[in-house]
Amino acid sequence: MASLTDITAAAYINLVSILTFLLAFAFLRLQPINDRVYFPKWYLKGTRGSPKGSGVLVGKFVNLDVKTYLKFWTWMPEALRMPEMELIQHAGLDSVAYIRIYLLGLKIFVPIAALAFAVLVPVNWTGGTLDGMKDLTYSDVDRLSISNVPAGSIRLLAHVLMAYVVTFWTCYVLYREYENVTKKRLQFIASEGRRPEQFTVLVRNIPRSFDESVSEEVEHFFRVNHPETYLLHQIVYDTKNLAKLVEEKKRLKNWLTYYEMRFERNQKKRPKTKTGLWGLFGKSVDAIDYYRAELEDISNEEAAERDKLMRDPKCIVPAAFVSFRSRWGASVCAQTQQTSNPIRWLTEWSTEPRDVFWDNLAIPYIKLSVRRLIMAVSTFFLTFFFMIPIAFVQSLASIDGIQKVFPFLTPLIKMEAIKAIVQGFLPGLALKIFMAILPTILNSMSRIEGHTSCSALDRRTAAKYYLFILVNVFFGSIITGAAFQQLHKFLNQAPSEIPKTIGVSIPMKATFFITYTMVDGWAGIAAEIIRLVPLIVFHLKNTFLVKTEEDRQQAMDPGCVNFATTEPRIQLYFLLGLVYSVITPLILPFIIVFFAFSYTIHRHQIINVYNQKYESGAKFWPDVNRRVLTGLMLSQILLMGLLSTKKAAISTPLLLALLIATIWFHKFCKGRFESAFVKFPLQEAMKKDTVDRAIEPNMNLRAYLEDAFIHPALKGIDMKNPPPIAEDDNNSVVSTKRKSRRPS
Amino acid sequence: MASLTDITAAAYINLVSILTFLLAFAFLRLQPINDRVYFPKWYLKGTRGSPKGSGVLVGKFVNLDVKTYLKFWTWMPEALRMPEMELIQHAGLDSVAYIRIYLLGLKIFVPIAALAFAVLVPVNWTGGTLDGMKDLTYSDVDRLSISNVPAGSIRLLAHVLMAYVVTFWTCYVLYREYENVTKKRLQFIASEGRRPEQFTVLVRNIPRSFDESVSEEVEHFFRVNHPETYLLHQIVYDTKNLAKLVEEKKRLKNWLTYYEMRFERNQKKRPKTKTGLWGLFGKSVDAIDYYRAELEDISNEEAAERDKLMRDPKCIVPAAFVSFRSRWGASVCAQTQQTSNPIRWLTEWSTEPRDVFWDNLAIPYIKLSVRRLIMAVSTFFLTFFFMIPIAFVQSLASIDGIQKVFPFLTPLIKMEAIKAIVQGFLPGLALKIFMAILPTILNSMSRIEGHTSCSALDRRTAAKYYLFILVNVFFGSIITGAAFQQLHKFLNQAPSEIPKTIGVSIPMKATFFITYTMVDGWAGIAAEIIRLVPLIVFHLKNTFLVKTEEDRQQAMDPGCVNFATTEPRIQLYFLLGLVYSVITPLILPFIIVFFAFSYTIHRHQIINVYNQKYESGAKFWPDVNRRVLTGLMLSQILLMGLLSTKKAAISTPLLLALLIATIWFHKFCKGRFESAFVKFPLQEAMKKDTVDRAIEPNMNLRAYLEDAFIHPALKGIDMKNPPPIAEDDNNSVVSTKRKSRRPS
Repeated sequence: MASLTDITAAAYINLVSILTFLLAFAFLRLQPINDRVYFPKWYLKGTRGSPKGSGVLVGKFVNLDVKTYLKFWTWMPEALRMPEMELIQHAGLDSVAYIRIYLLGLKIFVPIAALAFAVLVPVNWTGGTLDGMKDLTYSDVDRLSISNVPAGSIRLLAHVLMAYVVTFWTCYVLYREYENVTKKRLQFIASEGRRPEQFTVLVRNIPRSFDESVSEEVEHFFRVNHPETYLLHQIVYDTKNLAKLVEEKKRLKNWLTYYEMRFERNQKKRPKTKTGLWGLFGKSVDAIDYYRAELEDISNEEAAERDKLMRDPKCIVPAAFVSFRSRWGASVCAQTQQTSNPIRWLTEWSTEPRDVFWDNLAIPYIKLSVRRLIMAVSTFFLTFFFMIPIAFVQSLASIDGIQKVFPFLTPLIKMEAIKAIVQGFLPGLALKIFMAILPTILNSMSRIEGHTSCSALDRRTAAKYYLFILVNVFFGSIITGAAFQQLHKFLNQAPSEIPKTIGVSIPMKATFFITYTMVDGWAGIAAEIIRLVPLIVFHLKNTFLVKTEEDRQQAMDPGCVNFATTEPRIQLYFLLGLVYSVITPLILPFIIVFFAFSYTIHRHQIINVYNQKYESGAKFWPDVNRRVLTGLMLSQILLMGLLSTKKAAISTPLLLALLIATIWFHKFCKGRFESAFVKFPLQEAMKKDTVDRAIEPNMNLRAYLEDAFIHPALKGIDMKNPPPIAEDDNNSVVSTKRKSRRPS
Repeated sequence: MASLTDITAAAYINLVSILTFLLAFAFLRLQPINDRVYFPKWYLKGTRGSPKGSGVLVGKFVNLDVKTYLKFWTWMPEALRMPEMELIQHAGLDSVAYIRIYLLGLKIFVPIAALAFAVLVPVNWTGGTLDGMKDLTYSDVDRLSISNVPAGSIRLLAHVLMAYVVTFWTCYVLYREYENVTKKRLQFIASEGRRPEQFTVLVRNIPRSFDESVSEEVEHFFRVNHPETYLLHQIVYDTKNLAKLVEEKKRLKNWLTYYEMRFERNQKKRPKTKTGLWGLFGKSVDAIDYYRAELEDISNEEAAERDKLMRDPKCIVPAAFVSFRSRWGASVCAQTQQTSNPIRWLTEWSTEPRDVFWDNLAIPYIKLSVRRLIMAVSTFFLTFFFMIPIAFVQSLASIDGIQKVFPFLTPLIKMEAIKAIVQGFLPGLALKIFMAILPTILNSMSRIEGHTSCSALDRRTAAKYYLFILVNVFFGSIITGAAFQQLHKFLNQAPSEIPKTIGVSIPMKATFFITYTMVDGWAGIAAEIIRLVPLIVFHLKNTFLVKTEEDRQQAMDPGCVNFATTEPRIQLYFLLGLVYSVITPLILPFIIVFFAFSYTIHRHQIINVYNQKYESGAKFWPDVNRRVLTGLMLSQILLMGLLSTKKAAISTPLLLALLIATIWFHKFCKGRFESAFVKFPLQEAMKKDTVDRAIEPNMNLRAYLEDAFIHPALKGIDMKNPPPIAEDDNNSVVSTKRKSRRPS
């Protein structure tokens, strides 16, 4: 077991390496050549045209201004300085709410850590159980933990009290934060300019009729049932084929550009390519001519497909975007049930046009219901039994396995070097590959579930990923053994025994989780800020591909907050902090460092780097709140189990009452705030409508909304370039402020 | 253990006694003197003024027409003959949906019983495990059950298959029935005439303002946010005091009438009463003068209280009934969120005026939330730990207990006769009293939960009662031992062991449940039809109190379908039928007899007797559906446990898949139908509005709605006499038909 000195040493090493990374970042970001990697957001905003530098040629690539190097650390205070209101306008509410998760962690754990070190650590340290013991499984970390308190001691009362303090403080902070985010969301919605989605409702499961087209039916239905407010509607086409063609056309165009550039640089030789797979096999032809011809073919095909879409009624999906004369009308329609058959004419508030997930709009209700069932079962199996196929692959990837399947490879793998690789590397590789593609698998599963917006997809994926991490990382580390073995254990153990089994092993795993926090959490931060992959990719593209300024723009990969994979990881640290705050408070400083660094760095990233793909207005906050509360409840249950093995069974009813209070708090929060994230209140809609009418009485809303919800493939515009969104004038404030932050 | 012959004998005895009851009923109902006990519904409808009979004086009390006695059995086909549409108009949808629960039982269990006796019984009978056994704990009932099939036998496949058939058939019938009831509900709502609740929304949690009164605030808010549709509103007064005064006044009036009547009959002596407790202690005074004076006092008090209500703004509750110009407007307001604070201005579709539970309208959101928490915890304790106080009372009610607490009674209880009573009667009495007042306790708990309508109260009470019956009757009988002992067992046993423990004892309890069905279920039917208590009470009142025709009207106690206590009992038989259909199909005929008799008799009762207190439009059906499905899931889990002890572990995944499919079916049903019971679709509202406007373009809706939602105490009208509700002309059809059914 790692002793306190070991952990201090590890923390020291980790901190130094992070600081090295940060220094490297501080150096790299000052080089004009990296400007587009570390400040793409500003290029996309249009406030920065080209990297600034001294006039010399070298100055275009390397920063020669010595003064700026002396102020290398200034990015940190700069990142923290931008006021939140401005940040919301600059990066959107989603991003701001996202970094508030880290802030939430700090708010919860800093006071708890202070209290725990002031009260609990002395109580544990003087507990004296481990004093006489020469047991090697205990180290001085355990002296700081509850393990050092004798069973049945009155000192355990301090731990129960601490659990109460932790619960009440966490709930208080969560409540304030939920209130805060709700207020921000409402302000954000209120302050936004006119946006198409405010007037629009997504209608699904439109019944097919033989007499009318979908379009006519929608028009009739809404003219009758919303006579005062209905304005227009846009039907949805089945654009799967067209989208594929557009994608293929883009790929071909890319190749054509590449070969044209090659030819331009080296005019002596026309580039050649092969017509077969990956350009490696088949007949050799002139590349430029070949791709031009292909491009023409596909353009014709695309035109034909568009034509077909417009003419063939079978290509029209039973879904539509219906727009209303006022926000009030849209809000009413989105919140009400239209017909007596509740699976027909389903209405929901539309998301932003760029957030719409077009492929899922057509799924009928029953199919959707079956799909969700299948995905629920799949998630269960994926979470608990994923180790089985991986173990199978690992057994194949062993020396014996390879010899069996590919006997002809036997002489090769008999070689010492290759044998070492196979034995040491391959088995782990299967697991690594699985973990890397896991988010993609989960995302596909969420897609099959049939959500209609990208933001909803991300939220559902996050929920699945959280379950996976909870079972396989948290419980997996504590109980040791694959998830299905845990499951087997749980099913064959009394419900009152399970928290005991886990509770007992929790203090022993404290050092493991401290190390995990450093290796996974701290290292993640460093990787985040230095953006190694985008840095390399950008420079490669810049060197080999970029020709014009526009190309350079496209070579930038700003990325975005990947909510689906990062939020569940943050939740793991909330869980660890809450569980160990009473048991082994030593872990808290490590978690606080994680939250503090993450907050600063992500604040920097959303200001300078990330370009969000959609804006949902912090719609994910109810999930965040629920998961932190889940962590809190788990911590109470596990403490209950641990204390009941410590001959402090009297604590069980006390902690049970706490658990019930927490569940109640969860329900209360849900009732108090959640609807603000789902519904659009009529009063707010009415206010904005009234203001709008006063300011622009003659606004042509029809023209404004007519083309707002059209599949990007039909517009011929790429999905990643949403139509320009009306933004208010405050934007200029951001751009002016920005200048003072440039390295100069 | 009871053998097959024993059970047959018991069934014979029970059937004979039921038939005796039915004969007694057939005789009693023909007597004109009992007419108001067995046909009160027709008196309340106004289609029957006085009992018909031959002209002779005796004929007024006893039926002398011999012919009618020969056709004594005709009430049964008569009860079944009325078509359902007419029945809905006659008795309301609530009652009709209620008797459809019995019909649902028949639809589910008749085919299952046929199949089980055709397939499962032969399979069990020839199983042969119990052939050689001379074990006294087994009887020939067990030969028909799964106990007779050897462990690990291939025959068990038949049981698994049967479980599949039962599940699919039950789900199919439930789906069809849900669809049917939904359709009926929508038709019912569509066919109803104009009713105030269609135009009205209940608004709660109106924020207090210092500048405006509640009334002004409501008017402003809805004029702004529903400008096109808002019509008027009615504020709610805190009428608790007034209602008490009205109640007291009624009591005093009753006494006055009683004494006036006594004086009238015996004019020689003016009646006396005493002023103290219950008229037993204190000064003796002239009764008529005394009550007249008291009545005057209370009338003055009442007038003062009414005056205060109208003037004091503190007596106005932050809730209001808001009425709209159209059903569409009300439907929109009820379904939408009004403000950004989701716990302010809560709107819900109003219930009928007579269904409103006035006392709960004022409870603020947070208080409501706390109350529900407390009631949830209380329900848990009541369900699992109710035996503890009862055991305590029982120990007090023993000989030793009485000697300890009341030593002076020692000589008395030493007497043999009294000793026998104390020992044999008192301990059981405590439990009996508790079971009798349990529905009242549960109802008070639901009241504290703060529901705003009587129908919701009944539904919530039924849910609590179902839990109680499930735990204490079903599981209590199987596991034997008080509920908290079961709970202790469950907590200390592996989750996979619990179904096994229960599963094993289920076949052994079959005879017990067969007896239970006869004693509780069959006997309940007989008690229902003969209406012994109302019969006696009516004749007592009729003899001693009734003076005028109006008095006689009031002496009738038609009663109503008591959903809160009867539905959970029906659910117990669904549960028994589903659990035993695969294990011991012998129980099914007994359950079918229960459902068949109950259906006929309740159909008779809702036609001739019951007078419903409110009409919720079968709003309870989602609960019924959910509970039957709960029973189905329990049956699958228990079968899983039983089969896994029969060395047929291979069946577990098969049954697990079935369980998941059932859960999915539940969710699907919920999504498919439930909203029809909660929301009022806009299309339906619009249709009715349009028809209304076409028929009566000049309808003065304001006058119609103005006083619709006023507390009965404020109107000076008794709560049980709701304002007359507009009914359509079809009513006359019922009244004309009725004549043919009279004994003549």
